Amino acid sequence: MPILARIRAGVRDFAAIRLEVKAMHERPAFQDLYPDGWSHCYGCGRLNDHGLRVRSFWEGDETVAEVVPRPYHMAIPGFVYGGFVASVIDCHSTGSAAAAAHRANGGAPDSGPYPRFLTGTLKVEYLAPTPLGVPLLLRSRILEVKGRKVTVATQLFANEKLCAKGEAILIQVPESFAPGS
Amino acid sequence: MPILARIRAGVRDFAAIRLEVKAMHERPAFQDLYPDGWSHCYGCGRLNDHGLRVRSFWEGDETVAEVVPRPYHMAIPGFVYGGFVASVIDCHSTGSAAAAAHRANGGAPDSGPYPRFLTGTLKVEYLAPTPLGVPLLLRSRILEVKGRKVTVATQLFANEKLCAKGEAILIQVPESFAPGS
Repeated sequence: MPILARIRAGVRDFAAIRLEVKAMHERPAFQDLYPDGWSHCYGCGRLNDHGLRVRSFWEGDETVAEVVPRPYHMAIPGFVYGGFVASVIDCHSTGSAAAAAHRANGGAPDSGPYPRFLTGTLKVEYLAPTPLGVPLLLRSRILEVKGRKVTVATQLFANEKLCAKGEAILIQVPESFAPGS
Repeated sequence: MPILARIRAGVRDFAAIRLEVKAMHERPAFQDLYPDGWSHCYGCGRLNDHGLRVRSFWEGDETVAEVVPRPYHMAIPGFVYGGFVASVIDCHSTGSAAAAAHRANGGAPDSGPYPRFLTGTLKVEYLAPTPLGVPLLLRSRILEVKGRKVTVATQLFANEKLCAKGEAILIQVPESFAPGS
């Protein structure tokens, strides 16, 4: 059963689930398949030395990512600040949109280059305070791929608890906008 | 005329406007008036050494803040990543909610302690790519103060260009939740 289906079904063996996530991370992430010029994003760029390096993967028809906030990404002691939650939902959504567009165009999941999407609108609902000190799991469904526009719905879990929900509309960047690379 | 009214009226003397913003920054910011225990936020806490330190001020019935992204807060070279835009709108909104609640309760604007709000929902519309390398100006209107809930609408400008709009619903943290300080 897919990782997050197990969480939703009430499976509480989070250690085993994390081992599966670790194995997943040995595959190329969506963000590994952007051309270099698109890989500088603070949230998800593999070439940004300061950034969060969100790495996203297919799991069936859903996409998942695991992120670990740094201790200073706090709102108040013990809890993650809202901007971090919004940032990782945003970056996982842009990656998921790229993967969905690539798949819709017949591309193999583990080979690039992926197109690059930027955010049109982002909505985040904060359902419960997100604790610091544990990995956060993002899970997204692709709601629609329509031309250059993709809509993505995301859930953010800390351990098995749903802490936030997001919905983003992502727009594919025109190729003419590509940085030289 | 208030700073942002001048921008909206098409005044292009942005250097003079920045001087006024600088003078404004010599007053205490909303975030200076939180008790120490509420001042560790990555986005706006004066006690977070790693953070963005958003500082927000009244300008009549509107609130303003100026923030400068670091060079690595990029989406693609030359442009600010979406999570930064969401983060600063979020933190300026929570500060604005605190100031509005403090004012609604009869508090003087430059004396604390301010209450602490956390985000219930945040919606951001990205209207144009936000350029890196210039200060970003946030301007908010308080749409509603209702019990422990405040709704705030924000515009984010780079120079005089409107790049993003946000709307946030903020919830006042119960005093029982206060970190020991």
